[in-house]
Amino acid sequence: MSDLVYLNGEWLAPENAKVSVFDRGFLFADGIYEVIPVYQGRPFLAEHHLARLHNSLTAIGIVDQGEHFWRALINELIARNKLSDALLYFQVTRGAEAKRSHLPEGQPSPTIFANHSPLSVHWNTPEPAKVVLCDDIRWLRCDIKSISLLGNIMLKQFAQQHNAIEPILQRNGYITEGASSNYFAVKDGVIYTAPANHLILPGITRMWVLRLAQQLGLTVREEPFPSADLAQLDELFLTSSSREVQPIAQIDDIIIADGRCGPITKQLVEAFHQSKRAHLA
Amino acid sequence: MSDLVYLNGEWLAPENAKVSVFDRGFLFADGIYEVIPVYQGRPFLAEHHLARLHNSLTAIGIVDQGEHFWRALINELIARNKLSDALLYFQVTRGAEAKRSHLPEGQPSPTIFANHSPLSVHWNTPEPAKVVLCDDIRWLRCDIKSISLLGNIMLKQFAQQHNAIEPILQRNGYITEGASSNYFAVKDGVIYTAPANHLILPGITRMWVLRLAQQLGLTVREEPFPSADLAQLDELFLTSSSREVQPIAQIDDIIIADGRCGPITKQLVEAFHQSKRAHLA
Repeated sequence: MSDLVYLNGEWLAPENAKVSVFDRGFLFADGIYEVIPVYQGRPFLAEHHLARLHNSLTAIGIVDQGEHFWRALINELIARNKLSDALLYFQVTRGAEAKRSHLPEGQPSPTIFANHSPLSVHWNTPEPAKVVLCDDIRWLRCDIKSISLLGNIMLKQFAQQHNAIEPILQRNGYITEGASSNYFAVKDGVIYTAPANHLILPGITRMWVLRLAQQLGLTVREEPFPSADLAQLDELFLTSSSREVQPIAQIDDIIIADGRCGPITKQLVEAFHQSKRAHLA
Repeated sequence: MSDLVYLNGEWLAPENAKVSVFDRGFLFADGIYEVIPVYQGRPFLAEHHLARLHNSLTAIGIVDQGEHFWRALINELIARNKLSDALLYFQVTRGAEAKRSHLPEGQPSPTIFANHSPLSVHWNTPEPAKVVLCDDIRWLRCDIKSISLLGNIMLKQFAQQHNAIEPILQRNGYITEGASSNYFAVKDGVIYTAPANHLILPGITRMWVLRLAQQLGLTVREEPFPSADLAQLDELFLTSSSREVQPIAQIDDIIIADGRCGPITKQLVEAFHQSKRAHLA
């Protein structure tokens, strides 16, 4: 695995990849990003990630380069770096301007950055982990995968300080999501997850797990789940492209059921592994 | 006026000032900023701006370089660029890391960037302007002057599309502030402005206008003002370091009173000019 990053048409060693201090990404977080997992050199669910990338760009008014551009960039990123299992990262900002001004002046040329990082693909059931319940302090357009992430960073730091892998966020008494994951709560055989509105990122793994649950004949309700009911849960798990399906054993000091991976979570972990195997076959 | 910017100890032409794509400011908006007006070469209310800069840094866990460092940087920025009237801009991010990871690994060295932009100092009463009422979609730590500004940018673009100078934001039925300004509403001789909590930036001009109002014996209430009552206002104005005291004539299609600068606004515009004169004397 070599290490070349893409920046505005050039392939560079990471230490040579620099942007202007007047890039609107650096000054205003005026940009979006996307992450695509690659298993054995093959991007997983790429069409869904590219659809979300398109939605993010459109939401903030940056012209999408188009699927052809992104497919070629994905392939070149994999080929140049001889990637097997990896996470691909793509960031687009509104670009650099001559001076700092909240409102973009004219049409700056977008900055496009891409690189990769290692990915440990899960083939076993991950160890159940701890989360901490936090107030969701983020903005009200969490459906946009924006680089305006300071709130997420602060929440993740809080979780780390409490030996948790992730904060689980509540707004107005209902669970929204994690700082970089979605949640699924299981109670009396029913799976609950927050509806895909402006309060959460429409996770690709979330979407995929919903589809797997449907195929397995499980009952899923996309409706707000009250944080007050967390203590009565039978199972809880998080989903994200890097974590896939992550069982949760503990919220703050509350141990969920017996603290072990529950049967529905286990079923979905295995179904997810199976869909990866099918992807690679 | 020449044009040198400061970046991590170096003085550079703007086009040579670049940061790593792995700077946490570029990837995560993990940073804060501050803006200080300079009149005839003298920074205005600098001690208050530096106190807020300190608060922003502390809130996100970046060590402050200390007042001595900032005072020296202010002076050098003014001297090297032979500044008379200008806005000084300071940005601090958590710095660059070897790879992208939500949680900072180790203690990266902060990135410090400073530059200046032209400032038209007001000496007359500005023309009353239009604002548009928008839902406040921003995060719940608006008291931190963070570079995580995509929400502000989107709101400002909406205002621009409606020929307004600024969006005026409402959350849960109450006015919070503008996207880069605070508001003051006047009704029956009483001045209302939002309390300085986590929903607004504690503007330095806001603080200064509160002080001037007190000196003038005006009645001010720092309490939430309902957006439903905007149509009945006698006067409305915004404050910011670059706009100073900006009279507002119109909210959406509603003309405020007779659309002209009201007497209390006028009194505060003039008191503000007087305090600038005192600063320069």
